[in-house]
Amino acid sequence: MRFYDCLPAPSPRLVRMFIAEKGLTDTVETVEVDLGEQEQMGETFRAINPFCTVPVLETDGGLRYLTTQGCWRYLEEAHPDPALLGRNPDEKAAVADWIWRAEQEGLLAVADGLRNAAKRLESRALTGPHNYAQIPELAERGRLRVAHFFDLLNATLAEREYLAGDAFTAADIMAFVAVEFADWIKLTPPKDAANTWRWHEQIKERPSAAL
Amino acid sequence: MRFYDCLPAPSPRLVRMFIAEKGLTDTVETVEVDLGEQEQMGETFRAINPFCTVPVLETDGGLRYLTTQGCWRYLEEAHPDPALLGRNPDEKAAVADWIWRAEQEGLLAVADGLRNAAKRLESRALTGPHNYAQIPELAERGRLRVAHFFDLLNATLAEREYLAGDAFTAADIMAFVAVEFADWIKLTPPKDAANTWRWHEQIKERPSAAL
Repeated sequence: MRFYDCLPAPSPRLVRMFIAEKGLTDTVETVEVDLGEQEQMGETFRAINPFCTVPVLETDGGLRYLTTQGCWRYLEEAHPDPALLGRNPDEKAAVADWIWRAEQEGLLAVADGLRNAAKRLESRALTGPHNYAQIPELAERGRLRVAHFFDLLNATLAEREYLAGDAFTAADIMAFVAVEFADWIKLTPPKDAANTWRWHEQIKERPSAAL
Repeated sequence: MRFYDCLPAPSPRLVRMFIAEKGLTDTVETVEVDLGEQEQMGETFRAINPFCTVPVLETDGGLRYLTTQGCWRYLEEAHPDPALLGRNPDEKAAVADWIWRAEQEGLLAVADGLRNAAKRLESRALTGPHNYAQIPELAERGRLRVAHFFDLLNATLAEREYLAGDAFTAADIMAFVAVEFADWIKLTPPKDAANTWRWHEQIKERPSAAL
């Protein structure tokens, strides 16, 4: 397998952590794509992914998956142990629920906050092949949504050890990367969000979080 | 099972169609939630889903799934035939890729176009328990993104019969509902988008699309 990555960026980190949790780091060839130099917009990378984004996962059969969801699902089905998307119908559904919520209300809210405000991202308010102008109100709304997401996280983690239940899953990867990404716009969970910080420490100690 | 639905709304339609494709319509109890009357914001419904949205799926075991992704995943795992989320690792990953893209670039782009412009949705630019002010530029951006989504759909459907491959899957449900939802903001695929219209006719003929 081949994995198109970019070390500083949050989205490929989601797949990098997932690969590490599966114990596959040493068997996957990693190709670094320089987003800082806009390598993803060039002809060479467009031939790999016309949507101009990482992560991309290329299978040994030569097929490519172009979203985090596609990469995760392939890895989970082709390498079931350890399960990161749930072990039975109930767990799988709970994990799907929380991946969706942590992405929409966490990761993508941070992205709105960053991409609609950062000078270097002018006309790049969304990733992908099309340019979109920044909307300052959307940056503000993103920051507000992140604060609500932090509240939700702390309340949820009061009830259970991990986001979707008693086991570590990809929902934790999504929420953890969202929290770390929020740091880019100088937002961190409240100091007294004890459940969030307990959970954050637990995830941070996993070898996959150091990659 | 119990399904919290709202007949005119696009998101619960995603799950209603999925239930029908599984042949489960007659075995699922449906509860209609009156979004027009803001029933989802009331205390009774908040006790069912604190995120104030439909679809919600309640299992016979009393667990509830609160997002389309959670509902779909539960139904697929508990009732595998016919498969709507793919039959093997490659198909499952391709379906996950296209569900994500059709939701982000289709359904949610239409939602931006509608919710940031419709007078009756003032301060309801996003679904959920929190109010967010409308952002007119976001309505405009949503419409632009929908046009790009229509182009993508037609180009993709030139290459294959259904969005994620040769079989009808939930990716088609997502894209079909997005196209129908776009009608709410008076956007339809271009008349000469022959592949899209061929596909649209095929989906429309399925009994699940009439529900």
